[in-house]
Amino acid sequence: MDWVGALQSGNRLAIARLLTQVENDTPQGRAALDEIFPHTGKAHLVGVTGAPGVGKSSLVTQIAWACRHPADGKAPRTVAIIAVDPTSPFSGGAILGDRVRMRDLSGDEGVFIRSMATRGALGGIARATVEAVQVLDAAGFDMILVETVGAGQSEVEIASLTQTTIVVEAPGLGDDIQAIKAGILEIADILVVNKADLPGADQTVLALRAMLNLGGSPAGELHHGFPTEPETPARHAETDVGWEVPVMRCIAIKREGAAELLRMVDAHYQYLRQSGELRQREWGRILLAFDRLVQQTLVERWRKSATPERIENVMQKLYRRELSPYQALDILVPETTPRLEVEERQQQR
Amino acid sequence: MDWVGALQSGNRLAIARLLTQVENDTPQGRAALDEIFPHTGKAHLVGVTGAPGVGKSSLVTQIAWACRHPADGKAPRTVAIIAVDPTSPFSGGAILGDRVRMRDLSGDEGVFIRSMATRGALGGIARATVEAVQVLDAAGFDMILVETVGAGQSEVEIASLTQTTIVVEAPGLGDDIQAIKAGILEIADILVVNKADLPGADQTVLALRAMLNLGGSPAGELHHGFPTEPETPARHAETDVGWEVPVMRCIAIKREGAAELLRMVDAHYQYLRQSGELRQREWGRILLAFDRLVQQTLVERWRKSATPERIENVMQKLYRRELSPYQALDILVPETTPRLEVEERQQQR
Repeated sequence: MDWVGALQSGNRLAIARLLTQVENDTPQGRAALDEIFPHTGKAHLVGVTGAPGVGKSSLVTQIAWACRHPADGKAPRTVAIIAVDPTSPFSGGAILGDRVRMRDLSGDEGVFIRSMATRGALGGIARATVEAVQVLDAAGFDMILVETVGAGQSEVEIASLTQTTIVVEAPGLGDDIQAIKAGILEIADILVVNKADLPGADQTVLALRAMLNLGGSPAGELHHGFPTEPETPARHAETDVGWEVPVMRCIAIKREGAAELLRMVDAHYQYLRQSGELRQREWGRILLAFDRLVQQTLVERWRKSATPERIENVMQKLYRRELSPYQALDILVPETTPRLEVEERQQQR
Repeated sequence: MDWVGALQSGNRLAIARLLTQVENDTPQGRAALDEIFPHTGKAHLVGVTGAPGVGKSSLVTQIAWACRHPADGKAPRTVAIIAVDPTSPFSGGAILGDRVRMRDLSGDEGVFIRSMATRGALGGIARATVEAVQVLDAAGFDMILVETVGAGQSEVEIASLTQTTIVVEAPGLGDDIQAIKAGILEIADILVVNKADLPGADQTVLALRAMLNLGGSPAGELHHGFPTEPETPARHAETDVGWEVPVMRCIAIKREGAAELLRMVDAHYQYLRQSGELRQREWGRILLAFDRLVQQTLVERWRKSATPERIENVMQKLYRRELSPYQALDILVPETTPRLEVEERQQQR
C-alpha cells in the first residue's frame, strides 16, 4: 500500500487505520513508518500537560478552534489532536474528554482527533505517541497537539517529545507547597492559568511567576541519559535573548484567551526556529525516542529467548526468598559474550 | 560489613548509608541487598498517592504519628517513610515536604524518613524505591509508608509495589470529569478525602462513591505484561466477601481522621492475610520489580557494548531522515544469535 500517497491525499480512513497499526505495533505499521518517515518534520508539535482537573481538554479544543477560525485574516490551519492518557491503564477515561471536545470540533475536516490509552507495557504509550505524531506529521497537519493527563514523569517525558510545551494550572492549588512542582514548571515554554474566572486566579498567576523567577534552569534541557551529545549550535545562537516563559490566563470553556494563547504558541515556534533551538530540540527528541525503542526491543527479545518454565522456576525461588533479585538476574539474564567479539572469534577459526 | 546485624540493631547511620548505596546503584549496595533479602517480607507496605496539592505529606505524617501514639493502649509501631517524587527530575521538591513533616516527627527514634528524587533514567526511581523498601523492611520497621506525588502511570506503578494503597483526593476537583480518573481509583484500597473541612467535601465523597460503584474492576489486578502466572490461591479463597474500598474523610493538618484511617489500614492488612490475597500481591510485586530490573540491565549492557561513535553516526542519519527509527534499530540493535545456540555450536566444533 502507498501510505505516503494515502496520507497526503487526506484520506482519513487511511490515517485512522495506520494509527491503529501503530498502536498495535504490527509489522505492517513498522513498514509504513519506514516509508513515511522521510516525509515527517514539517508540523509544529505542541504538548499540553498538567494535573487532572485543570481543564486541558477544553483548552486543547479551543487552541484547535482558534487554528481553524483565525481572527487576523490568516488562512485556517489543519490540526491533529492526540490525547494520551497514562493515568488510565484500565479503562477509557479519555473517551469522556473526547465527547466534550467533539461539540466544538465535530464535522470539521481540518481537524483529526485520536485518543490513546495505555495498553500493556509502560513504554508502549510513549512509543505509540511518537509514532502517531509521525503519521499525522506525514499526513500534512500544520499543528499536532499532544495532550497528556497528569503530572508524573511519564507526562514530562511525553511532553519532551514535542517542540512547544504548554503547562496548564488552575486556581485553588497555589496555597499548597506541593501544588506547583518545579519539575513540571521546568518543561514549560508557556504557562496557562485556566479557569481564570475562579477565585484565587491572581494568586496562582503570582505564585507561578514567583516560581519561574526562582527557577533559572531553562526549559527543554531534559537529560535523557543517552551517551551521545548533540552537534547542533549552542542555545540562542542567533539571538542574545532567551525565551521568557509567559504566564497566560484562559477560560477555555468560555473560549476566552485561546486566540492570544495561539499567538504565543506561534511566537514560541518562531523563536525556536530563529534561535536554532528547534534543531537542538529535534535532536533531543530523536535521541530520546530512539532510546525508548532500544529499551523496548531488548526486553521483547529477552522475553522471546527465555523459556517460561525457567523464569517461573526462578521467580518461585525469589518468592520464597531462596534467591535475591540480583541473584535471579544473574541466572536469567547472564552476561553474554558481546556479539562482535563472537563474530571475530568465529572468523579467526 | 555485616549489614543484617547493623540494620537490625537499629543503626540509623547504617540504614542511611545503605539507602545511599542503593540510590546510587553501587556494587556494594547490590551485595548488601543480596545479603539482607532473606530478612525482608515482614513490614506492612503502605502506598499513599494522589494528585499534587491534596495534602499527601501531611496525611503520611499523621498516619506515622498515629502509629507512634496509638490511642487504644497498643504498643507503638516503628514507621519508615519513603517520599518518592517522580514529578521532580531536576530539583528537590520533596525537600519542602520533609520540612513540614519534621515538625511532628523529628526526634522520634521510631520514625525514619527518606526522600528520593528522580535521578537519571525513568526506571531508576522504581528500582531504587523497591530496594529502599527492602532495606527498611530488613531493618525491622513495622510499617513502611511510600508516598508518591502525582497521578501518572509511574505513580500507579510505584503504588502497585506496596500492599495497601491509599489514594488521596481533596475537595474542589469533583466537578470536573477529568478530575477523578478511573485508573487511579482502580489501584485504591482506601480512598481518603483530605481537607474535608473545605467546601465541596461532601460532593467529592459522593462523587468518589459513585465512581466506585460504577467501576467493578477489583483493585490490585495490575497487568504487568510478564509471561508467567501466579500459582497462588484464587482471590478471596478463605473469605466469600471481597474488600469494599471505603471513602474516608481526613483533615490531616488538624490531625483529624488519622487514627480512624490507621485502623482501616490495619483492617485491610488483616483482610489481605486472611483472604490469601497478600501472597498473590507479593507474587505480583516480585514479578513486576524483577521485570523492571531485567529491562534496566539489558539497556545498560547494550549501552556498554555499542561504541558511541557508531551510535552518533546512525543518530545523525536518523536526524537527517536518511534512516527511519526502525532502520536505525536494525543497525544498532541487530538480532543476535541466541546465546544458548552459540554455545551449542561452539561445543559441536
